[in-house]
Amino acid sequence: MAPTPSWVKQLKPSGAQGHELLAAERANSNVPVQQLEELLHTKEVINRKQRLLSILKAEKVFDKSQNYFMGRTDRFERALAREKRLRILKKQHNWTLEEFRTATELIGEPGPYGLHDTMFKVTLGEQGTAEQQEKWLTQAEDYKIIGCYAQTELGHGSNVRGLETTATWNPDDKTFTIHSPHLTASKWWIGSLGRTANYAVVMAQLMVGGKSYGPTPFCVQIRDLKTHEPLENIHIGDIGPKFGYNTMDNGFLLFNQVKVPHISMLARFSHVDPKTNKFARRGSPTLIYGTLTWVRSTIVMQAGSVLARGVTIATRYAAVRRQFQDRDAPAGEAETPVLNYTMVQIRLLPLLAATFALHFTGKSMMDQYQENKKTMSENSAKPTTRGAGPEETQSGSDLLADLHASSCALKSLSSTIAAEGLEVCRRACGGHGYSSFSGIGPWYADYLPTTTWEGDNYMLTQQVARYLLKSARSVLNNEKPTNDTTRILTEFHSRRTIGCAFDIIGNDEDLVAAFAWRVSFLTFEASKHRDEQKKAWNDLLVDFYRLSKAHAQWMVVKNNLSALKKIEKEGKLGKETFDVLMNLFRLFALHTLEQEGSEFYASGACSKHQIQLARTNAVMQLLKEIRPHAVRLVDSWGFDDWVLDSSLGRQDGRVYEDMFYRASELNPLNKITVDPYPDSDVLFKRVEKSKL
Amino acid sequence: MAPTPSWVKQLKPSGAQGHELLAAERANSNVPVQQLEELLHTKEVINRKQRLLSILKAEKVFDKSQNYFMGRTDRFERALAREKRLRILKKQHNWTLEEFRTATELIGEPGPYGLHDTMFKVTLGEQGTAEQQEKWLTQAEDYKIIGCYAQTELGHGSNVRGLETTATWNPDDKTFTIHSPHLTASKWWIGSLGRTANYAVVMAQLMVGGKSYGPTPFCVQIRDLKTHEPLENIHIGDIGPKFGYNTMDNGFLLFNQVKVPHISMLARFSHVDPKTNKFARRGSPTLIYGTLTWVRSTIVMQAGSVLARGVTIATRYAAVRRQFQDRDAPAGEAETPVLNYTMVQIRLLPLLAATFALHFTGKSMMDQYQENKKTMSENSAKPTTRGAGPEETQSGSDLLADLHASSCALKSLSSTIAAEGLEVCRRACGGHGYSSFSGIGPWYADYLPTTTWEGDNYMLTQQVARYLLKSARSVLNNEKPTNDTTRILTEFHSRRTIGCAFDIIGNDEDLVAAFAWRVSFLTFEASKHRDEQKKAWNDLLVDFYRLSKAHAQWMVVKNNLSALKKIEKEGKLGKETFDVLMNLFRLFALHTLEQEGSEFYASGACSKHQIQLARTNAVMQLLKEIRPHAVRLVDSWGFDDWVLDSSLGRQDGRVYEDMFYRASELNPLNKITVDPYPDSDVLFKRVEKSKL
Repeated sequence: MAPTPSWVKQLKPSGAQGHELLAAERANSNVPVQQLEELLHTKEVINRKQRLLSILKAEKVFDKSQNYFMGRTDRFERALAREKRLRILKKQHNWTLEEFRTATELIGEPGPYGLHDTMFKVTLGEQGTAEQQEKWLTQAEDYKIIGCYAQTELGHGSNVRGLETTATWNPDDKTFTIHSPHLTASKWWIGSLGRTANYAVVMAQLMVGGKSYGPTPFCVQIRDLKTHEPLENIHIGDIGPKFGYNTMDNGFLLFNQVKVPHISMLARFSHVDPKTNKFARRGSPTLIYGTLTWVRSTIVMQAGSVLARGVTIATRYAAVRRQFQDRDAPAGEAETPVLNYTMVQIRLLPLLAATFALHFTGKSMMDQYQENKKTMSENSAKPTTRGAGPEETQSGSDLLADLHASSCALKSLSSTIAAEGLEVCRRACGGHGYSSFSGIGPWYADYLPTTTWEGDNYMLTQQVARYLLKSARSVLNNEKPTNDTTRILTEFHSRRTIGCAFDIIGNDEDLVAAFAWRVSFLTFEASKHRDEQKKAWNDLLVDFYRLSKAHAQWMVVKNNLSALKKIEKEGKLGKETFDVLMNLFRLFALHTLEQEGSEFYASGACSKHQIQLARTNAVMQLLKEIRPHAVRLVDSWGFDDWVLDSSLGRQDGRVYEDMFYRASELNPLNKITVDPYPDSDVLFKRVEKSKL
Repeated sequence: MAPTPSWVKQLKPSGAQGHELLAAERANSNVPVQQLEELLHTKEVINRKQRLLSILKAEKVFDKSQNYFMGRTDRFERALAREKRLRILKKQHNWTLEEFRTATELIGEPGPYGLHDTMFKVTLGEQGTAEQQEKWLTQAEDYKIIGCYAQTELGHGSNVRGLETTATWNPDDKTFTIHSPHLTASKWWIGSLGRTANYAVVMAQLMVGGKSYGPTPFCVQIRDLKTHEPLENIHIGDIGPKFGYNTMDNGFLLFNQVKVPHISMLARFSHVDPKTNKFARRGSPTLIYGTLTWVRSTIVMQAGSVLARGVTIATRYAAVRRQFQDRDAPAGEAETPVLNYTMVQIRLLPLLAATFALHFTGKSMMDQYQENKKTMSENSAKPTTRGAGPEETQSGSDLLADLHASSCALKSLSSTIAAEGLEVCRRACGGHGYSSFSGIGPWYADYLPTTTWEGDNYMLTQQVARYLLKSARSVLNNEKPTNDTTRILTEFHSRRTIGCAFDIIGNDEDLVAAFAWRVSFLTFEASKHRDEQKKAWNDLLVDFYRLSKAHAQWMVVKNNLSALKKIEKEGKLGKETFDVLMNLFRLFALHTLEQEGSEFYASGACSKHQIQLARTNAVMQLLKEIRPHAVRLVDSWGFDDWVLDSSLGRQDGRVYEDMFYRASELNPLNKITVDPYPDSDVLFKRVEKSKL
């Protein structure tokens, strides 16, 4: 590649420089960045991050400069090398699990050990007996075996009961035969399986004495531990390139009548007695229900920070990028930073508000989960878990059921907000948002699967609706409210002949109450359709989706407000900063209300005039008030430049220098010189000859 | 890569096979696919496509099987090889321009000759003198020189007046000096420039005698015609990887005081007299205004077919993919094709409706454009154009201004619908939508720039608002309506004290009238804010965006209905099929109305009850009625499997076989065997040693 000539190296961007513009932005606001960052993340976490960053940045294998250029195979190999190095560093520095996780998060790419670290080890820990843990978990902890979790099949995603892979008990030799009877039985999408794992937890339909006992986990060796070739009668491979997540080797896996020993079936909650050849259940696997609730709560909190990355990049760039003069400005004025345009503000600032709202909501969910766990009875045997989130030992409480439904609704809403918000951020960067150097596109592409896994965002809403219908029935039966949901439903029901009057713009509690009113209205509407009018379930799915969304939106504004009240009480922030956070709360709530205006209006939660005022006055006024603090607010999320890996989002505003450097100095395409003429035919012949 | 074992090759998907399911779908509807396809595309175009497809499929260079696997450099080189081959085929088969364009469209990837074929040659044709065309255009037609169009700069996109590159007239030696004074002056995003072009039309600020005359086009050689190296004091390169469009070499370009001869300035509309050293304008460059209107109209029509590709894939796959039993179905029933779920229907069928609505609207725009052109006076000198769309010879008519505003509003709306709709289609495919083999992700990523180029979708809405404000003023001044826009505004204004009563669900004309009413209401609201209350322009940008969207939505439903009325009159379709198209029209209109409910309600165009009925009854009923025809309706778009390049969208429904084949037989990642253990360190050392 031709070196960048010296006359180019001397050039600077025209006009005010990026670092000057960002400095001016930061001078315009008093938001105490460090204090706010500590409120979001705690001092401990911030220090941990800085310590780990300095270790990672010093290692060449973690260098990110070629990430956006590499093809699939190189990216995968590099990701594996990074994971290996990370294991070695963990030992060297004697990292805690928390430190190790933070390091992984800072590297910011899915890696081929991902499912080993989480699902494989966790499943052995949760569902294996002591003997099984002794046999496999110890080796797995030492990376003597590398595992994955093989549940999803080519023809079966959300519906686990429909899995086709079978595991048939052979009474004669006390083994199981694992088999893939159809092509659609092929395990598919299995993370870490494609090239890396040599073991798998395989979910298969257990067949004993000709009878099916449903999906059951088996721990199965799939590749040779020395040659790494697939074992006989096992076909494995990577499933191919994806929209994102290409550093991960999602794989497929087929079995042709493969015999595995009795010990393979993970037997904590059910087992086949080799003497009687009978199947029996033991203990209660409800812990998984609790773990999923926990996992979804982490997704909610993570959604805030995932989105914050995009908002940070887009906001900083919008302060540096100038375009046109304000139409009402005097002629000859310099171009305006696009962050001054309300059309840019209306796209970015509600998302900035959402980052805080989701963060506070996720945190509150996790706190509630922990609290519940404590108050729950402890009469079941406590399962061993290694590396997993906490789980409760008994289900059945109303609080837990409420938390479960909340986690479904919030997982669906928050990951949708984050995914779609990232794309809004990318487009708000104009043309340059399309460049990989923006850092948003690749991040968005890697995040997208979150809308599908741990419960598809559409499917989950049915569970929420089912819970809300049940809650409505209990209210109609005059049962006493046992949680927040039944409380608001009861309140709504008691006022059904009186109506409501919420001062949505002037009073924050009323604003939250309007969200509660709307979801209550929709719940009783759904209840009328399903329970009274006996409408088909399928005909109500769209209503259920809207209902779940309304439920989640209510919880977000409710949790956001109560988190702020708590902060106010604890006096952790100065009044000025606190007011900015209150404005962010109001912006998120009123912008959401305005977007869903017709539902709010139909429910009677507010008047047409109020919705109009929210749209044309309140939201626009809030944009104005938040605007000066935008850069400091994104600064308080505390993303290091190395983490963002974005030309547009640089902390110092040197956007154009960085874009240019990457294109002119790093881009490998500039190493090739082509023959541009059609007739000369040189390149064409080369391709024809190649094996492609 | 290990070959697929024979026991795997014998496996079939479980249950009803994909081809059986699609056959059953097709048997369930009488929609005459071929007849409808001819209505959409004409028999002539369909035959042309088939003829060209058989030529392309026979050539190895056009083989698509490695497209989803190749890295950037390989994809680019392959794309260039394809473009070269296409040129040769064009000569061999003596293709017309139409045939050549169809072939390019069938290949379906942006190619490195792209900007040469369109912008470079077109600009020379439109803005060059006869002498200049003689000098460059002939060579360009023969591909002796390959050009690009260098306008956008690193620091300047939409605001052309802000360009920094200068072209300074040197009276002494009668040359111009082209110069990039700052880093932000670097040309950026220039298609075909990065590696391919050896000429560029460069837009630069013309400086004559110390005075600036604004952006002016220059035709400049930038690379050596033999070595293909950049000429002295010119720095060129590819700008790096992007979210999509990676077969194209978008480039950067900087000049260090480069002298070019007098002839370089394209002088059809302005020139510098070498004798007097004076600048002068001549002729009128308004044709460009017309050309842009034409280009935007083509984007509208293209949006329908771009979206139809995603809808075809998602609809076919939804008919093959089965998940869960219907909750109300008797126990033991087989899993249901997901297309039966209303939550899937509500995502796909309104988009299916949108494909037709956009197609008819785009077609009508293009017809109106041609008609206008005829009725316009022909007193200007007719410019020579080669390869460009048609353009008018004089602007200024009200009809043309209306068409210009319409094209802005519709370009913005239609490309947003298509881009966002494709992502909805991808997600509606569940997990497999994330695989590149779905074919939707790569297609979406390549389409996304359309929302930014030819007028950014947000910026354009200001032009629409400006036009509508002007129209409102003319109505308030009691001027006579001269086009559809002023007609509906006048009608609304005359009824402002009477109101309206539209039977939106029972009457199609009323449904369209409700859209007209809403946009009229919003127009006069905007007029009140800007003209009476003197609100700042910047404070109204969000309202303007909504206004433009409302205007575009009205035009789509209006054009859709009148296209159908015309079809009915001409008796081109049987009643049954015609009724299906009418239902699609209603679905698009009522679904849109319901989504924008609060605006329709606020404007008084319909009642709260009507919006509720539209949502819970009419839309749900239309989904039911359209559902059986879904597969035949997407069939009628006529996409060949080779064009779709999608496992999920295969015409024969062999979805799982194709997914598996691509993963197991084509995926190059399966050629590598890794060492999976962290301690062995082999792979890590290799990466450390590499030059990356």
